[in-house]
Parts: sequence; C-alpha cells; structure tokens
Amino acid sequence: MRAGVIGATGYAGAELVRLLASHPNVDDLVLSSVSFEGENIDGVYPGFLGRISLPLGKADDVVAAADVVFSALPHGVGEPHARDCVGRGVPFIDLSADFRFGDDEATFSAWYGKPYLYPELHEHSVYGLPEMNRDRIRRLAGSGKAIVGNPGCYPTGAAIGIFPALAKGLVAKDGGAPIIVDAASGTSGGGREPARSFHHPECADSVSPYKVGGTHRHTPEIARSLAAMAAPGSPPHVIFTPHLAPMNRGILSTIYIPLSASWETGEGAAAIHAVYADFYRDEPFVRVLPPGAVSATNRVRNSNYCDVSVHLDRSGRTLIVVSAIDNMVKGAAGQAVQNMNLLFGFDESAGLGMIPLLF
Amino acid sequence: MRAGVIGATGYAGAELVRLLASHPNVDDLVLSSVSFEGENIDGVYPGFLGRISLPLGKADDVVAAADVVFSALPHGVGEPHARDCVGRGVPFIDLSADFRFGDDEATFSAWYGKPYLYPELHEHSVYGLPEMNRDRIRRLAGSGKAIVGNPGCYPTGAAIGIFPALAKGLVAKDGGAPIIVDAASGTSGGGREPARSFHHPECADSVSPYKVGGTHRHTPEIARSLAAMAAPGSPPHVIFTPHLAPMNRGILSTIYIPLSASWETGEGAAAIHAVYADFYRDEPFVRVLPPGAVSATNRVRNSNYCDVSVHLDRSGRTLIVVSAIDNMVKGAAGQAVQNMNLLFGFDESAGLGMIPLLF
Amino acid sequence: MRAGVIGATGYAGAELVRLLASHPNVDDLVLSSVSFEGENIDGVYPGFLGRISLPLGKADDVVAAADVVFSALPHGVGEPHARDCVGRGVPFIDLSADFRFGDDEATFSAWYGKPYLYPELHEHSVYGLPEMNRDRIRRLAGSGKAIVGNPGCYPTGAAIGIFPALAKGLVAKDGGAPIIVDAASGTSGGGREPARSFHHPECADSVSPYKVGGTHRHTPEIARSLAAMAAPGSPPHVIFTPHLAPMNRGILSTIYIPLSASWETGEGAAAIHAVYADFYRDEPFVRVLPPGAVSATNRVRNSNYCDVSVHLDRSGRTLIVVSAIDNMVKGAAGQAVQNMNLLFGFDESAGLGMIPLLF
Amino acid sequence: MRAGVIGATGYAGAELVRLLASHPNVDDLVLSSVSFEGENIDGVYPGFLGRISLPLGKADDVVAAADVVFSALPHGVGEPHARDCVGRGVPFIDLSADFRFGDDEATFSAWYGKPYLYPELHEHSVYGLPEMNRDRIRRLAGSGKAIVGNPGCYPTGAAIGIFPALAKGLVAKDGGAPIIVDAASGTSGGGREPARSFHHPECADSVSPYKVGGTHRHTPEIARSLAAMAAPGSPPHVIFTPHLAPMNRGILSTIYIPLSASWETGEGAAAIHAVYADFYRDEPFVRVLPPGAVSATNRVRNSNYCDVSVHLDRSGRTLIVVSAIDNMVKGAAGQAVQNMNLLFGFDESAGLGMIPLLF
Repeated sequence: MRAGVIGATGYAGAELVRLLASHPNVDDLVLSSVSFEGENIDGVYPGFLGRISLPLGKADDVVAAADVVFSALPHGVGEPHARDCVGRGVPFIDLSADFRFGDDEATFSAWYGKPYLYPELHEHSVYGLPEMNRDRIRRLAGSGKAIVGNPGCYPTGAAIGIFPALAKGLVAKDGGAPIIVDAASGTSGGGREPARSFHHPECADSVSPYKVGGTHRHTPEIARSLAAMAAPGSPPHVIFTPHLAPMNRGILSTIYIPLSASWETGEGAAAIHAVYADFYRDEPFVRVLPPGAVSATNRVRNSNYCDVSVHLDRSGRTLIVVSAIDNMVKGAAGQAVQNMNLLFGFDESAGLGMIPLLF
Repeated sequence: MRAGVIGATGYAGAELVRLLASHPNVDDLVLSSVSFEGENIDGVYPGFLGRISLPLGKADDVVAAADVVFSALPHGVGEPHARDCVGRGVPFIDLSADFRFGDDEATFSAWYGKPYLYPELHEHSVYGLPEMNRDRIRRLAGSGKAIVGNPGCYPTGAAIGIFPALAKGLVAKDGGAPIIVDAASGTSGGGREPARSFHHPECADSVSPYKVGGTHRHTPEIARSLAAMAAPGSPPHVIFTPHLAPMNRGILSTIYIPLSASWETGEGAAAIHAVYADFYRDEPFVRVLPPGAVSATNRVRNSNYCDVSVHLDRSGRTLIVVSAIDNMVKGAAGQAVQNMNLLFGFDESAGLGMIPLLF
Repeated sequence: MRAGVIGATGYAGAELVRLLASHPNVDDLVLSSVSFEGENIDGVYPGFLGRISLPLGKADDVVAAADVVFSALPHGVGEPHARDCVGRGVPFIDLSADFRFGDDEATFSAWYGKPYLYPELHEHSVYGLPEMNRDRIRRLAGSGKAIVGNPGCYPTGAAIGIFPALAKGLVAKDGGAPIIVDAASGTSGGGREPARSFHHPECADSVSPYKVGGTHRHTPEIARSLAAMAAPGSPPHVIFTPHLAPMNRGILSTIYIPLSASWETGEGAAAIHAVYADFYRDEPFVRVLPPGAVSATNRVRNSNYCDVSVHLDRSGRTLIVVSAIDNMVKGAAGQAVQNMNLLFGFDESAGLGMIPLLF
Repeated sequence: MRAGVIGATGYAGAELVRLLASHPNVDDLVLSSVSFEGENIDGVYPGFLGRISLPLGKADDVVAAADVVFSALPHGVGEPHARDCVGRGVPFIDLSADFRFGDDEATFSAWYGKPYLYPELHEHSVYGLPEMNRDRIRRLAGSGKAIVGNPGCYPTGAAIGIFPALAKGLVAKDGGAPIIVDAASGTSGGGREPARSFHHPECADSVSPYKVGGTHRHTPEIARSLAAMAAPGSPPHVIFTPHLAPMNRGILSTIYIPLSASWETGEGAAAIHAVYADFYRDEPFVRVLPPGAVSATNRVRNSNYCDVSVHLDRSGRTLIVVSAIDNMVKGAAGQAVQNMNLLFGFDESAGLGMIPLLF
C-alpha cells in the first residue's frame, strides 16, 4: 500500500512520515510540501538521512498516487484535497481542524473564521477518536467517502480523561461546577515555524498559560466530544486552559470533574478507579494507571499511549483525572495511523508498537 | 546589624545569604549548617567565591550572635531556636512550616505529625505574608516576642491570587464549586538533597503532578489564609494540585474561582480587573498585569514580585487568576527579607530591588 | 530465543529491555536486579506498563535460563557471571568496563582499581565495537567462549570519529599535536542513582566539564581503540575532556586531529570527506553527513546511528570531526544488541530500525 | 548622570537597561529602538513592569540627550552615532563588532563585509576588555574621543582564559599545536529574533556545534587579542569552535594550550595555577578557582564574573583552561557597564555587584 502525506514537512507531517516508514502494511510513501517542494525530506529533516530520502512534490500528485492520504496542512485549506480523495475513493485523514466538527458548520466557522467549502463532505466525515468512534471509523471503510477528522492534541487527552465519568453518570449536572481541564503542552505543539513564544530564551525555564478564559480553539472541540458522551440535553460546561511548558513533547491534562451526588456519598476512589479501568479495559492505547500512580508525560514519550490516573479530592466531591499523551503521537500522527489501521482493517496497533522512551 | 541564618546550606538558606549579603541594613552575617559545619559557605556554594566566605557554625552560635535569626531548617526542629531567640529578644523568622499555623496546633499536628513543643510561642507568632498581615508583622517589633512563620511557596502564590476575590465578595458561597489552585513549581522547590523525582533524566522534559487530591501539606496552609480573608463562617473549599515542571525556579498558579451570582451577572472582566488592581495598588511586590497580559514565571525570575493576571471564563461564571512568583524569592528567602524589613522598620523593599531576569 | 538481562533496572539495563522487547529474533526475556529483586520491571519503570511486566529475579537465574546474557551491572562484579555463561556456552555481552581491555590487565587494574578475577576469560573476549571488530565478534560465535566487552559511550563516539583518519594515514605522527576529544554528554550517562551532579537544579541550564586532564576512565579505552587502528608503534596521544550538558540523551564529540604534512598540503576538505564517506560506506549505523552539514545529538536521538561530520580548520592543518550518538543506544544498549546480532548471525540491524526522533 | 541605550530592545540592550537601572551613578535613562519606537520598554519586556516604563525613541534623540551612549545595534550601523557622540564629547560604548578591530580595517572588512565609514574614529577607539586594556580605557576619558569597542561574548571568555599563559611565556611557539577554544553558549547569544536554530523544539535537549573550522566571526577577534598579548612576531594560531547548548545563559570555554618545553618539563600544575592566580590577583571580576575546582556556567549566572579553572593534561604537555561567563553580563552588558565605570572613574564594580544565581 502506498500512503501519501500532504504537508510532510511540518512537525505533524514529519512525524507521520517517521511512523509510516516503519508500518508493516505500508510499502511506499509519497510526500508533498508547499515550503520545500522540489527538495528531499532528508534535506529538511536530517534525522531521516540514510532512511527516507523521498522527494517533496505537489499535493495533487500525492492525491493522485496514494491509497490513503494524510493531510497535515494548516486549518482551512484541505477541503479541495478531501473532495479529490473522495472522488478517487481514497480515504482522507485530516490532521487539521477542518473535519473535526462534522455537520456543525456554525461552530467551525465561529471559531475558525470561515465557512465550509463543501458542506456535503462533512456530513459523513467522522471525528477520529477511536475511543469514542471506533465503529463509525471502521464503517467508513466501505462507504467510499472516508474522511476522518483527526482530533486535536489537547482534545484527545481531555476527552479520554473525561469519557468514563460522563458515560457512567459520575458527573454532577446542572448548577454544579464546570469541568476544568488545566493542561500543559510541550513546545512542539506550536509547530515548526519559529515564533517569539517558542524562541528558546523566551520559553525555556518558564511556564505560562495562554488563551486563558476558554478562548483556545480546542475548547469547542472538547465541548463537542463531551456533549456526545453525556446524557442528551445536558452537555457539561468545560473550562480549558492551555499552558506552555519547557519540554519538547507531551501534554499533561489535570482535569477536575464535579461528582454527582450519588457518587459523592456512596462511593469512593476505588469504585471510581474501577469504572475507569473497566471502561478502557479493551483499549489498546489507554492505560489506566494502578491506584496511587500518577500520569507523567515522560512515561508516554514517543508512544501512542494515553495514560490516565484517577484521584479523588479530600472532599470526596471532585474527581481529579490526570491524562498524559505524546502530543505528536497520540495527539497527532500516531492517532492518524491508528485511524488508518481502523479504516483498512489492519491490526489497530500496527506500526504503533513503540514502547515509551523511559528517560 | 548582624543577621543570622540557621541552615544556611539548603537552597532557601543559601538564597537568604545571597540576598542578605546585598542588603543595605545588614552589616554582617553569621551562619550555621548541620551538614557542613566547619566548612565555609563558598566551599559548599562555589558561586559565592570571592564574595562570601563565612564559616558555617552551630545554630546556637547563630542565635547567640545575631540581631535577627532566619531559620531555614526542615519542619519540626526549629522551636528550641525560636524559644532561645525570644529569650534574647531577637526576632525569629522561620522558613519552615513550624510557625505557619499560629494557635491551630491541631491542624499542624495532623499534617506534620507532631505536636507543638512550646505552644506559647505560637500564640503571638504571625503568618508572614505581608499582603495579609503587614500591620501585625510590624507590631511584632515592639513585643519582644517576634516570631514570624514565613509562608510556603505555593501558599504565597495561591493566596495573593485569591485574596482580592475573597475580600471583595466576588466568590460564590455554599454549594458552589470549590476554588481550584492548579500550580506548577520549578525543581528547586524540592530542596538540595538529590532524590529520584528531581534526578535530571527523570524530570527534565516532563510535567507531572504529585500529591493529587489535596494531600500536599500546603493545602491546609492555603485554606487557613483563605479562611482568614473570607467572610466569617464561610471558608471556601480549596483543591490544590501541585505539579513539577522542568525549570529551576518559579511557581505558576492557575486559579479557578467560582463567581458569586452578583458578579456573574452584573459585572465583567474589566470590573474584576479593577478590583484586583485597586486591592494591590500600594503593594510593593504585587504587580497586577494589564488586561490581556498573562503571568509567566520567567517574568518574575530572581525578583520578589508576585505577578497576577486576571481573566474571565467565557461563561462569565468563573474567574481565572494566574499568579507567578520566584519560589526561592517571594516564595521563600525574599519574603523572609521582606518580613525582616517590616519587623525592623526598614524600607519594605530594602535589599529586594532585583529587576526580574528577562531571559 | 530467550535473552537475559542482568542488572535490568539501571538505565542501560532498562534500555536493553526496551530494545529487546521489540527484537524480531527474541521471543522471551528473563531479567534480574539486585535493587528491585522480587518486583516487576513495570513497577520500577511505569513506562513499561501494559507491555512488559516481567519479574526481576537473581542474576544466577538469568544465566541459567537465557540463550544470551547481557550484563548491565556496575564495573567489577560481572566476571563470575561471564565465567558461568562460558561454562554453559552462552554468549555474554557485558556493558560494564570489565571486558573492554582484553589481555591488558595492567591498564584495567590501573584505572579500575582491581585485578582480573579470571584472566583467562579476557584472552578471547572481544571489544564490541562493530566498526572496529566486526569479524572478530562474528567469529566468537563458534568459539563457545563468546564474551563481548561492550564499549563505553564516549569511546564509541570518539573512536568512530577518529578511525578513518588513523586508518588512512591522515594523522600527524610524533612531535605533533595530540588528538583532542572534547565531548558533551546528556545526564542519563550518569545512571539512575540520584546524585548532586545530576540533581536538576544543579545541572539544568548549565554546562561544565568534569574529570578534566585526561582522568576520566574512558581515556585509556579511547587510547586503546586508537592504538589498534594506528600504524604499529605510533599510538596517538589523546586528550579527552567530558562535559555534562543539560539534556537527557546524547553525546556530541568535537574532535581535533592534527593532519600529517602530506594531507596539509596536497589535499583539502573534499578529499578528507571522501576518505570518511568511503571508510563507512557499508556501515549500517554510521552516517557521514554531506559536506556542510554538522552533527547534532537530536538528529540521532533514540536511534543506533553515529553521525559524523567532517570539517577542516582554516589553517588546513587540523581536521575537525564531530560525531553524535544517543549515549543509551549506540553508546550502550543499541550497540549491545548490534553485538548480539553479529554473534547470532542475525541481520545486523534487527531490532535497531528506529528512525531518530526528529524533535 | 543620564545613560543612553541605542537598540534597547534586543537582548543586550535590555540587559543594559536592567543593569543601568540599578547603577548608583546613573540617574536617568534614555532609550531607543527601531523595532518598537513609540512603545514603552515594559511593553516589550513585561519583566520591567512597575520598574522601568520609559518610552523608546530615536537613536538621534538618545545621542542628543545622554552623557554616555551604549549602542546595542547590529554590526555595521553604529558608526554615524559614534561620530555624533564624538562630536558632542560623549563617550560611546559599542556592543557590536564595529569598533573591536581598531585600525585593522582589513580584518574587519574581510569578516564583516564592509569598509569603515569613518576610519579616523577607529584610530583612537579601544577594545573594551578591561583585563587587557584597563589603562587605555581609562585614558580615553580625557580624550574627548572616547569610543570603546565592547568585546564579543566568546572572545571575552577565550581571552581571559588564555592571557596569563601567553603573557607569562607558557605557550609553545612555532611548529607546535594550535590553541583550541572549544566553547558552548546558551541560546540568548543568538539574540531576540526567532529563528529555526533557536526554536525550542529544535535546540532543546540537544548540543551541536556551528561555524566549525574557524569560520565564526569571533575567530579573528580572539586572534587579535591573543596577538596583542603574545610576544611580538609570534601570534598563536587559534582554532575556535562554538557550540549551542540548551541553556538560556552562559558560555563555557574549554581551552587547550600547548605548553612550551620549559613548562612541560620543569613545572607542574601547581606552578601554572600560581601563574594564573597571580596574574588575576587584583581583577575584580576574574575568579581563578582553587585547584581541583572546575568552572561551570551556573556559578556565574547573572553576575559579571569570569571564572577560570586551570588543569594539566596527564601528558604534562597541554594546559587545559576552562572559563565560564554569563554571556549577557560579562559577555555583553555587564562588561559595557564595567567600561563605563572605567571611563568615568567610578568604582569599577559599581552596579555590577550581583552575586551569581546559585541555582
């Protein structure tokens, strides 16, 4: 099989190339880049030297040649390629936000500042979080119109941390406290283009939040996932605060969830831990840590795992869940490969067997 | 004036030496160290070379010789020195937790595992957060029994971030959400003794929380400060989650405060910002950032400032305050010097004029 | 095949476990640890959770059960295990220094402070640097006495950077300048035990050398490799200065080589580059970078590559070679696996196909 | 006295502002910035908030208003301002390379690609390394044409490390080995403008050299200082290799110096240490470390010190000197202030009393 990557020289694109090059079901790669068209990928990323020296061509050539297309372009420019892929019957896995909102064009356009170009493409697209939509993603395979909106990095860690509580009725409804997602990301999340915020002397040895007050574009994406998992009509309110931390990779999300009255009184930490462990029992990439352990980003580095640790506040009224992912793997390229595996009926873990870098 | 530092070779002690050596009202220093008794301070900290080469003696000799005694010993061992200082009429500023709980021995012993040795010493001691107790600290001067419990690092950043909201009635009472303090500290907060958690390969390039669920000893200290500032009978519930971040210095606290109904509906971000700016108008070391700015630890590094930025969640129902301090300065040694300045009637900023390291 | 790891909970041992767990020819692992005997490896390294949960037993049980034994013990304690492996006809690959000096017991004992316990074991042992001794390592396979002394991290990067110059007669002899190896290592090189030098606040955001003046134990190991490659009777003098840099992984070696008169005058940078490129043409894990490129540790991170860049001083009289390795992979565990592959006739790259982490 | 800073918003300029604001002889500051003209300095550097809120004007206004002018502009644009200052009789301290080469226009133009605009300005300018030219700098004061070329960061650490050996005849001449300066800098050395090399994900957790082979512009500057210190007619050849290390501040230089025959044979490490200690006995900012100690960048951080440690290779033939500076202080702004102090007859340490940040 030949896999194509549009936008192969951004961080997510390059990480895709790295993962796909070791994938047992992928025989060949075809790559494009606007910024480096005409160069070879190992000229842009010398780490590939001696391993992958493919030329960087045009997006259209990728679409024409590939059996599956990953798009790692910026938001707002991928729809024409998606349309072409659908026309060719080739699955399209989009790492931008363009296909994360399904038929909810209003939310997309409110946060991303532009309408859908081809609304019909979004109707059958699926939000590619396997822990939420595994069967829907698989069913896309036979549709001939397979478009997957690969989730954002923060929304992946947040949603996986909150899903069991919502699905199993642990969360207080109406009038209670919001769910708070306080998250810290490594600097690769900002992409490859140099910018002051990610200039080493400005961000090393420092922690700070940004887009405080629910203004980060991942806020509506998280809200949408939670609404889907919550009982109809009672979507939880989420406050999401991203921080920049001086590390290369990783997202840690510390999540505060108000417990419903029944859970406050009748149950304790062990019961809640059991809910989480049971919920994710069969998930290949979610690891609910044993009681007492705490998630840390360096324990999932360079892997597709989402670690989840479950804690209870002393008051017994607030559940605290800590999730950790590698933002470039489970938060981007690894999850995209997982989606490809589902679409093609491969082993869901194919090409994703990396054991975390321990140190 | 001769200032004494007991426990001068731990990080807080050494930082005190560094600050006191440049203090305009301090003529001389006398130091002790259990671990390095008999050596000189610049042998333990080569950064002092050519500047401070004082011998490290016994604590008793410090008490006998100094006009003010700072104790940077571990928790639980400083009371005898405090007693001796009171006996000599010398002010005692304790950087451990021993004198942070005043007459509330029950809370202290519950969290620190030991009773007060000399309960009477605690009766007149003052919690040394100038933004809360400036006048009480000043009044200690004439008492002949001046014992100051210098605040913990996390409690300093948390309390300063929350005080205006509590004092001005912004916080929702009863039945509402808790106040959540989600904070990240640099690794110097763990002290000078090597340990696995602070071993470079284990903590660099990673973020993780610890003592999740309100089990960190700073939880009751924060609660105590907030109770003092809240309306009588309605202490807020606080959830405090510390994280370790891969930086040397700094604490960033992102604080979620449920707004009372009147503030939810009638007022907006500008009004709340005005409350904060007004509350801290005359504070020499609290900087309420202009609207739109966000606190970051590298903007207070090596200074005694606590930066505070004020934000409102999109819902209008949760106030988000972000405070930043240098954990070794405003979070420890700098605040101790500030307390000395108050006790002795010096300019409150004397010896604390460091402009933050910009990068 | 069952691979055994003695000392599986140190950094090199754990990295071996991580690599061997993904090796296509290894079916099973058996592990030991003195410090954590009776625990499971994923309890010690939570990153292994859900992947490797093997118990940690005794070294003797590893020796008794394995088809190949890797020893990641400290220097000076592995010989009895080597003896037992030889007795059983099982290859022994030692990551300590114990078998790096062959029959030169004098040098070993001078630098490591103890004699050989079983001198006869050393006679047939081979220094496991494939780029130097590939055929000798392969030939060990049939000997029934296969002991490989896996090279140290610094000596690997240094030797690979210098070999072509020595082997092809580029180096000035007698009376000229020494070869200088100025190298910087990440902190994982110091091992897992917490120590002041590797305490985060003491080493982050700082660079410093240690063991200056040729006193690091890797000095004689480098000298020995170079002597083997140089013309008989003219071993070059090497000055080796290690530095600690604030990164987790990686060794960068900047190597200054005085050129012989013929190369000074007759040839230039391109010719020297060609010598290097030719020398390593068939090496699976040495990448001679194209002219103009410069080695960097983050371009080999989590891979078994040694990158080599070749430069000429403006004077034309000094060759400057820069080599980069991941100290835990090519500098330890990866090279050990490479040696196993050679001993067993596997594809030399089996289990070592990691593409460098790009960022 | 009113001090002016042209180019106050680059890193060196902002560091100057930070230092000058605490200088006891400076009453007032006047600042300019091309990029941020019309803004205030604390808008560009929020760390200044509440302390320095001066407007950023035009360079000409600085020249017109100041009693001393510091220029922190890029190379090649400062001469007109120097001319105007000379015209006004105001000392001009230039942190760019423009006045570092005195009357040697040939070298300047060869390395910086442009001729002198006003050659006569360079005739009386002095290279502002007090350890080399203290008296010449002082004598400038009365000349009415005081132009100081403030040294580059690398050249400062290199020259201070080598001077005693050259001045006291320790260095081998003719036909021997070159002096090698292998140095690592923190990322602030690259300036404030974002660039790929200093983008956090590209440089954090990695070490690499750049401009290998003596092509960095600091090479001729180092050579010029050494030639001035060496015996006439025998300038040493220097090889200088800069590296980028993942830290914010600091330059560590590991310097290899071939010893002359007399020092090889007759003297040992102690005698050489005594030469260094004696040479710098009266220098306020050079600390020759005691035998056995090793320089490290975190021991001079935020100070104007240059630490020097002295080591001898096992062969006895190569002296190894390790110097450490804070690249922004002794390597830029601090040294500029030191030069101002000399020019104006202030205490040479005025405003430079910072004790190094210990951790």
